[in-house]
Amino acid sequence: MHSDIEIAQSVSPVPIVEVARQAGVDAQHLVLYGTDKAKIDYSLLNAADAHRAKLVLVTAINPTPAGEGKTTTTIGLADGLRRLGRRSAVALREPSLGPVFGVKGGAAGGGYAQVIPMEDINLHFTGDFHAIGAANNLLAAMIDNHVQQGNSLDIDVRRITWKRVVDMNDRQLRKIVDGLGGRPCGTPREDGFDITVASEVMAILCLSVSLSDLKERLGAMVVGWTRAGEPVRARELRAQGAMAALLKDALKPNLVQTLEGTPAFVHGGPFANIAHGCNSIMATRMAMRFGDIAVTEAGFGADLGAEKFFDIKCRMSGLVPDAVVIVATARALKFNGGVAKADLDREDTPALERGLPNLLRHVDNIQRVFGLPCVVAINRFPTDTAAELELIERSCSEHSVRVRLSEVWAKGGAGATELAEEVLRLLEEPAHFRLAYEDGTDVADAIQAVAHKVYRADGVEYSPAASRQLTELRRCGFGELPVCIAKTQYSFTDDQTRLGAPEGFTIFVRELRVCAGAGFIVALTGSVLTMPGLPRVPAAEHIDVDDRGVITGLF
Amino acid sequence: MHSDIEIAQSVSPVPIVEVARQAGVDAQHLVLYGTDKAKIDYSLLNAADAHRAKLVLVTAINPTPAGEGKTTTTIGLADGLRRLGRRSAVALREPSLGPVFGVKGGAAGGGYAQVIPMEDINLHFTGDFHAIGAANNLLAAMIDNHVQQGNSLDIDVRRITWKRVVDMNDRQLRKIVDGLGGRPCGTPREDGFDITVASEVMAILCLSVSLSDLKERLGAMVVGWTRAGEPVRARELRAQGAMAALLKDALKPNLVQTLEGTPAFVHGGPFANIAHGCNSIMATRMAMRFGDIAVTEAGFGADLGAEKFFDIKCRMSGLVPDAVVIVATARALKFNGGVAKADLDREDTPALERGLPNLLRHVDNIQRVFGLPCVVAINRFPTDTAAELELIERSCSEHSVRVRLSEVWAKGGAGATELAEEVLRLLEEPAHFRLAYEDGTDVADAIQAVAHKVYRADGVEYSPAASRQLTELRRCGFGELPVCIAKTQYSFTDDQTRLGAPEGFTIFVRELRVCAGAGFIVALTGSVLTMPGLPRVPAAEHIDVDDRGVITGLF
Repeated sequence: MHSDIEIAQSVSPVPIVEVARQAGVDAQHLVLYGTDKAKIDYSLLNAADAHRAKLVLVTAINPTPAGEGKTTTTIGLADGLRRLGRRSAVALREPSLGPVFGVKGGAAGGGYAQVIPMEDINLHFTGDFHAIGAANNLLAAMIDNHVQQGNSLDIDVRRITWKRVVDMNDRQLRKIVDGLGGRPCGTPREDGFDITVASEVMAILCLSVSLSDLKERLGAMVVGWTRAGEPVRARELRAQGAMAALLKDALKPNLVQTLEGTPAFVHGGPFANIAHGCNSIMATRMAMRFGDIAVTEAGFGADLGAEKFFDIKCRMSGLVPDAVVIVATARALKFNGGVAKADLDREDTPALERGLPNLLRHVDNIQRVFGLPCVVAINRFPTDTAAELELIERSCSEHSVRVRLSEVWAKGGAGATELAEEVLRLLEEPAHFRLAYEDGTDVADAIQAVAHKVYRADGVEYSPAASRQLTELRRCGFGELPVCIAKTQYSFTDDQTRLGAPEGFTIFVRELRVCAGAGFIVALTGSVLTMPGLPRVPAAEHIDVDDRGVITGLF
Repeated sequence: MHSDIEIAQSVSPVPIVEVARQAGVDAQHLVLYGTDKAKIDYSLLNAADAHRAKLVLVTAINPTPAGEGKTTTTIGLADGLRRLGRRSAVALREPSLGPVFGVKGGAAGGGYAQVIPMEDINLHFTGDFHAIGAANNLLAAMIDNHVQQGNSLDIDVRRITWKRVVDMNDRQLRKIVDGLGGRPCGTPREDGFDITVASEVMAILCLSVSLSDLKERLGAMVVGWTRAGEPVRARELRAQGAMAALLKDALKPNLVQTLEGTPAFVHGGPFANIAHGCNSIMATRMAMRFGDIAVTEAGFGADLGAEKFFDIKCRMSGLVPDAVVIVATARALKFNGGVAKADLDREDTPALERGLPNLLRHVDNIQRVFGLPCVVAINRFPTDTAAELELIERSCSEHSVRVRLSEVWAKGGAGATELAEEVLRLLEEPAHFRLAYEDGTDVADAIQAVAHKVYRADGVEYSPAASRQLTELRRCGFGELPVCIAKTQYSFTDDQTRLGAPEGFTIFVRELRVCAGAGFIVALTGSVLTMPGLPRVPAAEHIDVDDRGVITGLF
């Protein structure tokens, strides 16, 4: 069996100008990064175009430590559609360096359903995350410099909320005191670093539709509060112009290809807890501009990722999805049924049966709450038994839920034929897409709507701090922004141990934060880590490069 | 009068594949970054080649707050040589983002002697500095993670010398305490950030001649000390493979062009105090491979920059320079003669006469200590008077020092005709290049040699701490590495207020640090800032980008 990187390196990529040409993009609109990567001029999106592509979202049941293969399925489905003669394109998030060197490894798909060049995509790619980090950290330096040079805005140094970032899993930086060393070295204060993907700049990059929109959003960001309790915006520090200059190339979607030559727009990668967890609006629109069917994905499970895809990304962009694929695995269903991670290789149909309600609730949400047709894709693992697969199929059909096997990891697009055919049938059905709450809903009502309709909670409670923040945010005019709920991805509840389809619980909101540039309020339930750590043996220890520049050890 | 960025944007760059072709580089050896930037495959340097290009170093008198125009002269001279029908190429350092947003502005030349695209070169360029930052910070995360996971190497957390970096002027990060927040968040310890260009990884990138050399050097870096007082190397943390993977593209020299289409290899940019301050060995070798005359520069004045170019870069690479240009301005000579910065616009021949010994001592060092022919280039400013220029010329010829006016800022290569002709004459003269001290010299003797021969000091003194460090470094086998002296750039002494050509002083070594990967010992005299701060009004406040992506406010 070959590793992901071996498979990826065994394929000679089609020149990216040729991939673009086949998709209808002239080379003059590309900025090349080598022969196999390019950035695309987004002014193309403004061209008058009657073309109405279909948009397919790939989401999943609640994730488990085993991994579900959502990105792999997204890529394989696009390849499968292409094998059926359809002009498909895929829109994905960019991987973050931190996890690449930590536990997770790469995030460019797997097996025979990958985007290439996987090494570049998993490392620096076209430098987008570095640009985001630089813009984020320029603003941070300008904030502390403003305080150092006299603090005419009267920023409360105890309430500077803007954090520095690094694209690395570095727990040592979670909580720090900086500005030590006396007068020439700043003002001592409590501070901390986030990982780059947690920056609001990342969320903004993914929600912007032009450079001026980007700049406007950057300027609107709240970086802290004055001693009188008023928000301080980035534009008050005159930071947005230089930040936008740093981001002007990063804003352009990246074009690469799948192992089978399907065009892939890989762009942006915001956190799926404190941000909305989707690739950029511009990447998705590019995939729709240059494909008849665009396949995209959202982070975590459907309760978090799909909900934010709809209620944040689609709301802000006007994108209207046409169909949804929900990825599940027998292993993840068994995990949801109570099996420990170490025992997932063993057949256990009773556990699987206990886990199935998780899947069925996600299906019901997509169909009934959001009004979209959907199909379940079972991402097949070698350890799956016939009895297990049969049980999934039978249970689904008892509930009139369509389900198809996906074998894209082992077979590429050829492993997605049945799934792709089912998706094509779904795309013929009428969709009645709706959001979980209307524009202009008070944020507490929006939280209530998501908790009630999507999570199936009995109610929402607020910590005293969150209640105060709610009052403050309403007073400052942020009270009707959409909500981005940061919740454990492992459960419908805010308790990661409650698997399956739990009932009889409340959602506890610990903290509210405004992302005024991204345009949403983050509601934190439980503690959310915005800076991961490295494991005992980091993946970095096994990554190497030989004298010809060939990388090994990425997975 | 047009600003640098307006001039740069008024010129349509020649496609970089054409610049390469004219220099004899086939497009297959390029990795394109857009149409105007490329990385070059360094395996080209291994091709059997009898070609022996000439190497010209551009250095300067002691710098002043006025700026001397060394990079501008380097570029203009190469353009001037090309106008005389010579195949010239230029090798330069890459600018750092921090100063671009701080006081200094860009560093891609000025006026009609610039390298383009200046906006890209001054911002992310091809991502080299981001890659260096990521590699540096990956190692930092692995060190603290090692401590967190049990610390089997018994690293003394009070003696972790490896610092994190950010490519930003951010004084708030100079001195911090990190690892706060309890057991899951690392180990509390004193720490601090440097600017990226101060990273040893940057120095190593500039001194490496292959990926395996790079990896070897990365692994050899000393990141801290055990509680028993033994050095801890990066390879003991198994970090060098992943770091090299992050750096594999950054190691390739970048090819751009001057405003006049001369090939320019712009690559690397180590600090000129705690590191050697030159562009990469590979960039210089590329300029020599694809030009008949390669023009390159070194940081600060000749006492620091040229000395390190010779004693570190040439020593390690085997490069042999053929001639030297020493840049001076009437303004800088007046400053060395005691005129305040605000009064430099006024004619003052007595002050200029008092400043001339500074220039003459640098000339003497180049000729007598290092055995190279040289010419003084007077970088002409509009405020220079005829009497001042005449005085310089007369004084120089009294000392048999050749001097030529340079007007490249205003006229491009056409402003360097006389300078270029003189350089061609110099290249016909015999050179007897020698180093200031032999390989294998004890570091204290090497410091003594540089202080005595180059600075003209009476002697060298050590702080008690530096004496202890000297003993420790010798015990650990580092005692015979070349020395990199970190000293104020404004004076031959270690006191920045002693201008001109002072005599009767000693050099005080405060601290010694080993850079075992770069392969030198840093001797710090006085305090050296490795993290700059932003000024009252950062340049960032004036930088902007319009909706077409055109940047303004860079200078």
